[in-house]
Amino acid sequence: MAKRIKISFLGGVGEIGKNITCIEHGEDIIVVDAGLTFPDNEETPGIEYVIPDYTYLLNNRSKIKGIFITHGHEDHIGALPFLLKDIKVPVYGSPLALGILESKLKEFKVEDYTLYPVEDRDVIPAGKMSVEFIRVTHSIAGSYALAIWTPKGTIFMTGDFKIDHTPIDGKTTDLTRIAQIGEEGVLLLMADSTNVEKPGYSMSESNVFKALDNLFVQNKDKRIIVATFASNVHRVQQIINCAVLHDRKVAFAGRSLQKIAEIALDLGELHYPEDAVIDIDKIGKYDLDKLCVICTGTQGEPMSALTRMSENEFPKLEVGDYDTVLMSSSAIPGNEKTIFGVINNLNKRGAEVVYQALAEIHSSGHACREELKLIFSLLKPSYFIPVHGEYRHLKMHKELAMEIGMGASRIFIAQNGNSVEVDSTGIRVGCNVPCGQTLFDGKYLVEDVNGLIGDRKALATSGCVIATVFINPETYREPVIVTRGINIPDEVRAEITEEIVTEIQSGKLTEAGMDGAKQYVRKLLAKKIQKRLDKRPVIVPIVFE
Amino acid sequence: MAKRIKISFLGGVGEIGKNITCIEHGEDIIVVDAGLTFPDNEETPGIEYVIPDYTYLLNNRSKIKGIFITHGHEDHIGALPFLLKDIKVPVYGSPLALGILESKLKEFKVEDYTLYPVEDRDVIPAGKMSVEFIRVTHSIAGSYALAIWTPKGTIFMTGDFKIDHTPIDGKTTDLTRIAQIGEEGVLLLMADSTNVEKPGYSMSESNVFKALDNLFVQNKDKRIIVATFASNVHRVQQIINCAVLHDRKVAFAGRSLQKIAEIALDLGELHYPEDAVIDIDKIGKYDLDKLCVICTGTQGEPMSALTRMSENEFPKLEVGDYDTVLMSSSAIPGNEKTIFGVINNLNKRGAEVVYQALAEIHSSGHACREELKLIFSLLKPSYFIPVHGEYRHLKMHKELAMEIGMGASRIFIAQNGNSVEVDSTGIRVGCNVPCGQTLFDGKYLVEDVNGLIGDRKALATSGCVIATVFINPETYREPVIVTRGINIPDEVRAEITEEIVTEIQSGKLTEAGMDGAKQYVRKLLAKKIQKRLDKRPVIVPIVFE
Repeated sequence: MAKRIKISFLGGVGEIGKNITCIEHGEDIIVVDAGLTFPDNEETPGIEYVIPDYTYLLNNRSKIKGIFITHGHEDHIGALPFLLKDIKVPVYGSPLALGILESKLKEFKVEDYTLYPVEDRDVIPAGKMSVEFIRVTHSIAGSYALAIWTPKGTIFMTGDFKIDHTPIDGKTTDLTRIAQIGEEGVLLLMADSTNVEKPGYSMSESNVFKALDNLFVQNKDKRIIVATFASNVHRVQQIINCAVLHDRKVAFAGRSLQKIAEIALDLGELHYPEDAVIDIDKIGKYDLDKLCVICTGTQGEPMSALTRMSENEFPKLEVGDYDTVLMSSSAIPGNEKTIFGVINNLNKRGAEVVYQALAEIHSSGHACREELKLIFSLLKPSYFIPVHGEYRHLKMHKELAMEIGMGASRIFIAQNGNSVEVDSTGIRVGCNVPCGQTLFDGKYLVEDVNGLIGDRKALATSGCVIATVFINPETYREPVIVTRGINIPDEVRAEITEEIVTEIQSGKLTEAGMDGAKQYVRKLLAKKIQKRLDKRPVIVPIVFE
Repeated sequence: MAKRIKISFLGGVGEIGKNITCIEHGEDIIVVDAGLTFPDNEETPGIEYVIPDYTYLLNNRSKIKGIFITHGHEDHIGALPFLLKDIKVPVYGSPLALGILESKLKEFKVEDYTLYPVEDRDVIPAGKMSVEFIRVTHSIAGSYALAIWTPKGTIFMTGDFKIDHTPIDGKTTDLTRIAQIGEEGVLLLMADSTNVEKPGYSMSESNVFKALDNLFVQNKDKRIIVATFASNVHRVQQIINCAVLHDRKVAFAGRSLQKIAEIALDLGELHYPEDAVIDIDKIGKYDLDKLCVICTGTQGEPMSALTRMSENEFPKLEVGDYDTVLMSSSAIPGNEKTIFGVINNLNKRGAEVVYQALAEIHSSGHACREELKLIFSLLKPSYFIPVHGEYRHLKMHKELAMEIGMGASRIFIAQNGNSVEVDSTGIRVGCNVPCGQTLFDGKYLVEDVNGLIGDRKALATSGCVIATVFINPETYREPVIVTRGINIPDEVRAEITEEIVTEIQSGKLTEAGMDGAKQYVRKLLAKKIQKRLDKRPVIVPIVFE
């Protein structure tokens, strides 16, 4: 008796069904994407990499037939430098996605890997299943939806997508093939929910050009600095086109931008006359109004070119009243304050800054409500799992599916860690799989995440108090109290020391032994400091016998 | 020879000219507002209160004729419980602003103060100057602009304001008086820049009722929970009106809401039939569809009623699929992520959540561009200082003033700490005044802000490493290395210990003495940990002789 298809959502916090998804049938597992979560200074302070817990893949490694990449964004490929050290399976994806991935693998010194570039409508066999790559438009070139052909029916995963009828490279979302697949019958659809709150249709990437062109005209006497995402190759292409049209030389500022531009140029995803782009070190040779600098830093990232420019710490150029900065981007929720900080600083240096509140120089890479409905209408799936979004998005996407006629029992809102089982008879939740986030602090994997992060959060708000105490009367020394990140007034410090000394002199601490003494000191300090200072610092008792 | 008028902007970071402004002429100082900045978890981790540095007022206390409050929001009155402990001067403001202030003064145990409630167009003498209170509309009742009559001309400060022709209490912005004052001649205008990016006019507070009413109709079978700012008395009034109309009882959830509602009710700023509001403890006696709970927590504040409800930690009620939550608010930049977290959690508990993306159930309290132009046209000031905004807002407000005909040399963008001197002959920057932020950590004033906050930031991202070292051969013990918020692998720890031991055995550390040994240990640990772990924790050497 053939088994149902099992879909498991590995992945950390935040968006659901984004980082790693497994499609499993019998002895075969297909892995779709392996991305990382962007570390959050409040949630995971000081952490460099947040990757999904892929224990489930390690435990089932012999079943894995391949990793299928929808597109080359960090949240879809960023975990591969870790995963491919542990699991040796082929990776399939667009040349651009694999180009970006390969440059990351080199950076992480991963050596033994197999990457297979795919083309539109390529079908890759994977055990008793197979995977077809269906072209879609998104904010990075080389993006694919996946049709997964299983013995139980077809699973369609949109990946991150929008329906852009006038993309820069003319490569539209393959609606023809999507219509065919819909006609043949789709068991399950998993679709991008990012923009489900937005009515209507997303703006075409081509529209950005008009806004850019207008701004180049309006700022013809200024140097123009355009900030955008490094991986948005089509945006970079349009900025270069605009610069060429207005007789300006382009210079790239920021390492990631240079790297991706190089990869895209090699792959033919980026085109420009050889003399259009100059080295950033050569900009001094040109008049300011003959220059267009493209840089990273649209999210106010501290080490990005734009942030450093705003603080006058970018060695290659100095921002002034001769500059107009175009923010060709939108804010990722949570980054607003930092981004506005960068804009304020650029303004203070005299630069004009044009951001989304003021001009249409950005278009989103995700489908809005009418596009989502179109995909739904073409595919007519039997079952639906909304993915790629926070819970509120998935809920709204479920409601959208119900609006266009699907029954609630055919829609499943998954959580990370869920396994969902589906076949023509129904959709149901199966056993949970291990999930969560694996953190890398500096070079090391964090074993005790809650302990480390909990300590850091407490240290951040209240600092730490260290008390060294000698409990053996023969080697007795005065207790020493040292603090960092908290001030203890002298009188409180004296009071605490005195109480400890009294306790030692009474012999009680000696009797209590190391652990008992530690506990006593910890409790005493916690109590006193909370009472007198209304703070709860991390308390570190160091006891010597 | 009469002096120019000097305007000093005390206040911390962020918005300019918001927290405390001094208007000074000869021997007289008028203080306008004394607010606090909301602490920022990233900028000032763990800090309870961020108040502006008012050293300038302490140094000039004999000149201060009074403190004039524009309205009762925290960022305009929140520093007074601190300031009024140090400086004994009368405070003037609307009954509601003073009511809220008085409740704060009691909470902070400030006893010796004099509050004078004012009415529309009241003129208060202040040395050779005088202050007139001009009614404006804003997101709190009892809001005033100030006209300051000085020997050098009139200074007009809008305070936070909008022009609402249909406010809930019928008390519109006093455009008639503003027109008269304009006709008499205005030397300097200082105007609210918060919404200068927004074209057109702000929505009237009355419009909110229609949206609320629609939602009450649509959700007639649900319990309705409405989250709003506690101090937005008119919003609370409208929610109560709507609940009464739909035959629902109102219950207040959250201490600040209860407190402000009580004050507003006493002052006649809030009106409702006695049986309209019930105690939150009594909601169990009513059917769910007969209830409307008003609560705080629109910004995702961790201890607020709404956040606790979303985590099922609010003892008075449990949120479920029988609830619809209306977020009658907008996000303050920087809070988006937290707010969406609360919405996701409410959704997960089954509740519907209606937020601004989905319905017009909030109106801003600040003037948009056309309103700003109107005030400008009525007042026709000789000089202009845009205030209440980040730098980008002030810059844009300057551009707006230039659009409607003012010369750039008549407009001054100030920074906190600036003193600006103005008379009919010109506007110019004077000597700077002390400014910045004073932090309270728990109950104590932070003396060394950079040290404490710097340590906390380092502790947050990298934890701390404590090394106890005994340098006297006679009382020698093994070095002890303890960490919090960072993990040191055993091999690295062994390596570090071994190096310290070698150094002690060589006699070098003993020779170096306490300070030398501390420095050695700090350097060694920092170097090793950076090299091996790529981290820079706070290092605490504790050396015993």
